[in-house]
Amino acid sequence: LPQLLPLLLRTIRRHTLLPAGTRVLVALSGGSDSVALTLLLLEAAPRIPFEVAALAHFNHRLRETAARDETFCRDLASRLGLPIRVTAEDVREYAAAERLTIEDAARRLRYDFLRREAQELGATRIAVGHTQDDQAETFLLKLVRGAGATGLGAIYPRRDQIVRPLLDVTRAELRQYLASRDVSWVEDETNEVLDTPRNRLRHVVLPELVRTYGGDVRRSLARAAELIREDGEFLDELARTVFARVAVCSPGTVEIDARRLRAEPLPVRRRVLLHALRAAAGGREAGFTHVQLAMDVLTGEAAAADVPGGRLELRRGTLVLRLRTPDVASG
Amino acid sequence: LPQLLPLLLRTIRRHTLLPAGTRVLVALSGGSDSVALTLLLLEAAPRIPFEVAALAHFNHRLRETAARDETFCRDLASRLGLPIRVTAEDVREYAAAERLTIEDAARRLRYDFLRREAQELGATRIAVGHTQDDQAETFLLKLVRGAGATGLGAIYPRRDQIVRPLLDVTRAELRQYLASRDVSWVEDETNEVLDTPRNRLRHVVLPELVRTYGGDVRRSLARAAELIREDGEFLDELARTVFARVAVCSPGTVEIDARRLRAEPLPVRRRVLLHALRAAAGGREAGFTHVQLAMDVLTGEAAAADVPGGRLELRRGTLVLRLRTPDVASG
Repeated sequence: LPQLLPLLLRTIRRHTLLPAGTRVLVALSGGSDSVALTLLLLEAAPRIPFEVAALAHFNHRLRETAARDETFCRDLASRLGLPIRVTAEDVREYAAAERLTIEDAARRLRYDFLRREAQELGATRIAVGHTQDDQAETFLLKLVRGAGATGLGAIYPRRDQIVRPLLDVTRAELRQYLASRDVSWVEDETNEVLDTPRNRLRHVVLPELVRTYGGDVRRSLARAAELIREDGEFLDELARTVFARVAVCSPGTVEIDARRLRAEPLPVRRRVLLHALRAAAGGREAGFTHVQLAMDVLTGEAAAADVPGGRLELRRGTLVLRLRTPDVASG
Repeated sequence: LPQLLPLLLRTIRRHTLLPAGTRVLVALSGGSDSVALTLLLLEAAPRIPFEVAALAHFNHRLRETAARDETFCRDLASRLGLPIRVTAEDVREYAAAERLTIEDAARRLRYDFLRREAQELGATRIAVGHTQDDQAETFLLKLVRGAGATGLGAIYPRRDQIVRPLLDVTRAELRQYLASRDVSWVEDETNEVLDTPRNRLRHVVLPELVRTYGGDVRRSLARAAELIREDGEFLDELARTVFARVAVCSPGTVEIDARRLRAEPLPVRRRVLLHALRAAAGGREAGFTHVQLAMDVLTGEAAAADVPGGRLELRRGTLVLRLRTPDVASG
């Protein structure tokens, strides 16, 4: 059995997930990941030290087993002597009203609930149970969906209040840990169904990769995702600085000094263009293909190009992006 | 049918694969990729212009069909009015003698042959038939094998003399192109066997991903690989500059100014350490895990660490890498 606590403490310290004195709210679905997260955080708490303020369970009312899951979570909290916050919301109704997928609707309602409860409890961090498995799956999903120029990297260990202390631990390790402590969990049957892309990845593609390449496939993918995210963050930061230096934004137009942009290295050049394109695109998608079009205009290979929300031209050494909806130019 | 010629010309121009006036030797196995490569290069030649100097066929004598493939290639060359160079070598014997896998032995002999012939013919470029499919497969292979800190990116469109003009074209597109021109090719039956990791990827994993996500999976993977390679090249270059500034190499030792290295952004820091570790490692593998160890010594989290070929310590603000085999320090 690998020592999970040192691994967890290392992740917590490396990314400053839970600074000393923090009060943390733990999201508990009742599945193996979040049950293990709860127990491991209780073990880790005196070492930093931080405080587990409460557990929070979101009852999405989507399956018959939802009531069973809620009961399981309430029982676990009472056995651990921890307060638990519970809400039950109609995800299906919300999804229909907001025209979201069930998955997106559930995510939004769940995070809203967690933030509300955290604020009430004076908790500055919310811990969620994403594992190295989730990391690997999400990365592969992004790759095959063509996340392209950016957004390719890993799930963040921390994004504002939300922290993910289990990102360096596999689901199998967590289940071994729970089994060794005789702690049970509830199974989420929807995870077993093969009708969503993520589940096909989890139950068909990844096992096939493990059969061919051995057990470290998930770890390799998760690490690659992390490295790519770190590289990307640095390059994005660099590109933001360059953008500020070479671009002039006015209502309806972004003007970029073409000569200066051409002098930048390719990864920065791409990102500066993507930044400009995204400002023009408003809510629309701007990605790899549009960056390629913009590069062609920049080099003079193309005279002009239509991009989401606007049109791009090269005029006497200036790359001009004229927007069709002038009011988003300032973005 | 997509227009392959413009796509090919774009790839050739973008990466300066075949500058005007170049004489190129085309590697021809007889498979669909290399047959299409030959025909497309003949179409492209007057546009740049460059010259197809000859075809070159390597008979690896590995299968009963090897003689059939050679005959096919000789026939094609004579129909196209092109000279063809052929060699037959005993790959199995060479692999045994050099203790290489059959795949590695075949690759080495084939490229040696191509370089020899190119030199004799006064050809400065050798075109090989790698496609977007190969790009996607190679990238996935590297990912699941944990290529880690570096070496994650794509196949290079050009590496010294070797050029790969088909990297932006899929195998399916090439076969459509050949079919539309009534040109045949030979099938390489070994590609159909599921006993190599690459073939399992090609025939099991990628088709499953296509079933789940649609036909653009290969393109998405190939593009991601390209972007990651470009980002990596730039960051490697940056790290080399920083290494030269913060490191002092003497026989048996690399000394790095820890304070100055800590001030560098994470992606550069990682690569500087990898650079130092590789110098120490000689031929041995230095990768993600060792960089992590080195990072721990740099931050003071660990007092020292054993790394391939040496030992790493922090001494009064200097990260000292002492080699066990002093003569590789200058590398």
